[in-house]
Amino acid sequence: MSRGILFVLSGPSGVGKGTVRSALFERDNHKLIYSISATTRLPRAGEVDGVDYFFKTRDEFEAMINNSEFIEYAEFVGNYYGTPKKYVEDQLAAGQDVILEIEVQGAAQVHKMFTDAVFIFLAPPSLKELRKRLEGRGTEEDDVIAGRLETAIREIILMSEYDYAVINDDVQTAVDKIQTIIQAEHYRVKYIEDSLKNKILLDTLGGN
Amino acid sequence: MSRGILFVLSGPSGVGKGTVRSALFERDNHKLIYSISATTRLPRAGEVDGVDYFFKTRDEFEAMINNSEFIEYAEFVGNYYGTPKKYVEDQLAAGQDVILEIEVQGAAQVHKMFTDAVFIFLAPPSLKELRKRLEGRGTEEDDVIAGRLETAIREIILMSEYDYAVINDDVQTAVDKIQTIIQAEHYRVKYIEDSLKNKILLDTLGGN
Repeated sequence: MSRGILFVLSGPSGVGKGTVRSALFERDNHKLIYSISATTRLPRAGEVDGVDYFFKTRDEFEAMINNSEFIEYAEFVGNYYGTPKKYVEDQLAAGQDVILEIEVQGAAQVHKMFTDAVFIFLAPPSLKELRKRLEGRGTEEDDVIAGRLETAIREIILMSEYDYAVINDDVQTAVDKIQTIIQAEHYRVKYIEDSLKNKILLDTLGGN
Repeated sequence: MSRGILFVLSGPSGVGKGTVRSALFERDNHKLIYSISATTRLPRAGEVDGVDYFFKTRDEFEAMINNSEFIEYAEFVGNYYGTPKKYVEDQLAAGQDVILEIEVQGAAQVHKMFTDAVFIFLAPPSLKELRKRLEGRGTEEDDVIAGRLETAIREIILMSEYDYAVINDDVQTAVDKIQTIIQAEHYRVKYIEDSLKNKILLDTLGGN
């Protein structure tokens, strides 16, 4: 059995990573597992522990850091966010594709540990639209929003480090594009050449 | 306007490159231009000069080689095959995607000249099936077929040099997969980051 592929969906805060990931998982034609992140930020209305995030105290989170239990973690606007390692590694080894939905800061760390991972940058249609989305959330102060927009500009310039970029203009269109990328990646020689060579060449020995 | 993408469809002789490429062009949702090859082999029944190939004499072909008029050329089972350069370069510069359908030997040369080209290896389901297809053509002698099968084994091992591999088991399924690859490649950061960064960041300056 071949190893699963690790997809990393990232992009500036407010671009709609969570919405796009949810819409992707609402479709019945995907075969992805979502890796749930841990965070020290407080739950927003409707968010459930163990479903949206593993909500941790600062002490709990720092103990996990010290035990090297994260693929990546980042401190972002005063809170920690991180991806627990064991679950992802087990799923990939079992041939299961996994998608991470993480902050840009964390994506760089994943790049070092999983060189074969596929990095998808979710981009806002414009910074103006990004500001509107951050304000619309109604959870952040003005100076936090200003800080996030500054960070977003730096992150948009860094999209060069990613494999693919998808504009989140319309959620369903963005999901279509991400599914196309996921499907195409499965035809990459690097993932399939061993099984393909065996299949083609072994069939011959038996068949002639 | 951004440059077009060069797709290279290749694979062992007899795998069905021509059939798959024709089926792709019969669809009305593709935006590819096919680069017609030049060859010194004789036309098969139904093949038309300037449509299927530019049929050349050996002297004519060698004059084109000496004038550096080819992206790639190869001598294959006693005949020359080559891709005229100017047409492909003009189309890419005009933002048009181009697909080449060429022998494996030629694909390696394209790789050197067009480092950004996307290489798709069309693989037979098995060597047994490949032999059947070569025999079914009825145009080749037994020893020619044996030689092509030996070449095919070497070429299948070399698929590592390609970006993608697609098995030509069912023609329409193979075309679906190739179209998915073509679409996904258009979301690659390396092709779109400049226009995307301009679009996102410039919109802001005007809009705030």
